[in-house]
Amino acid sequence: MTERPMSERAVSPRTEATRRKLFAATLKLADSRGLVGITVDEIAAAAGVAKGTVYYNFGSKDALVDALLRYGVDLLATRLHDCAAEPDPVVGLESLVDATLDFISRYPGFSQILVSELWRTPGQWHETLTLLREEIIVIIKQQLWRIEEAGRLPAGVQVPVAAAGLFGTLLVVALDWQVFQPERTRAEVRDSVMLLARGLARQLPEEE
Amino acid sequence: MTERPMSERAVSPRTEATRRKLFAATLKLADSRGLVGITVDEIAAAAGVAKGTVYYNFGSKDALVDALLRYGVDLLATRLHDCAAEPDPVVGLESLVDATLDFISRYPGFSQILVSELWRTPGQWHETLTLLREEIIVIIKQQLWRIEEAGRLPAGVQVPVAAAGLFGTLLVVALDWQVFQPERTRAEVRDSVMLLARGLARQLPEEE
Repeated sequence: MTERPMSERAVSPRTEATRRKLFAATLKLADSRGLVGITVDEIAAAAGVAKGTVYYNFGSKDALVDALLRYGVDLLATRLHDCAAEPDPVVGLESLVDATLDFISRYPGFSQILVSELWRTPGQWHETLTLLREEIIVIIKQQLWRIEEAGRLPAGVQVPVAAAGLFGTLLVVALDWQVFQPERTRAEVRDSVMLLARGLARQLPEEE
Repeated sequence: MTERPMSERAVSPRTEATRRKLFAATLKLADSRGLVGITVDEIAAAAGVAKGTVYYNFGSKDALVDALLRYGVDLLATRLHDCAAEPDPVVGLESLVDATLDFISRYPGFSQILVSELWRTPGQWHETLTLLREEIIVIIKQQLWRIEEAGRLPAGVQVPVAAAGLFGTLLVVALDWQVFQPERTRAEVRDSVMLLARGLARQLPEEE
């Protein structure tokens, strides 16, 4: 469930190239107008293929978008899995933050779609996105549990809530960086997220 | 700039009621389909008014959406200003977090729009949203500066980045709560955000 790379689907390199071209065209169109309003005609025209090619490869616009969402999240999940191999769980969390920021800066259009669609209800891709959200959050959870096992998580942190919060934070902080603060380096943004995670107001009195 | 309540515009209660009806209809339509695709015809029909009423009150769909965004952000800004009156700046930050969560749970459709549109470039409402984002972030910044003046902000926190990050975090954590974890109470979510802000991994070794 957590890894579903395209290569497992045993498609030819040519089919793979066509699919990527359609994904890229869809992302470009969705960037300024959102996913809902775009049509198969427009996607085909933007990708420079016949309309039939879209139907042959995906069956429908919704199925194309569904495949695109899965493809993008799989890419991110694969990268995050690699960070989990880090022996020190805290260093692992930092490298996970860094990998997510890198992914979002490479694929800002895809990240914009995630942010637009993830909390839209009812939304056409809500079911797929619910599964995909879990796919990413479970990786963050595992990292937080490793930190907890090492006795380095503060008392009172609920791992599932913290993992969901951290994922959302990463998404929006990275988009905010791309759109409103592009002059900052990725290292600066990573340090800010880690500081936010590490204790924006660490010296506050404890709950108990 | 930070306060622009509708009442100052000296519109009659009836006009005010019509505008609110149009805002509500727009939010409802945008909820499932996004703002971009909806038309003045649909908004008028959903609000139960003539199409001319939309043009009379706002001039165009874009101007209606623009007014709606300003109206919603003003509501939020007014609430956040009230929190700033709190003498203890840390208690003020907590009450600011709480007020934002309360706002988002009351107006989930509006919050969904903010999240969908804020980082979309080019986007029709990008300019308005850039100003409105600043309107909220400046309030959070002031609160963080007060904490800094009280010597209670950890070294290394850059207030502008932290304020932008905290606003984004609040938006998505609150939406995630509404959509994926509705069984949690607002107090639980507030505590989670404060814990995230206060040090998800407080016991990590310092940078230097």
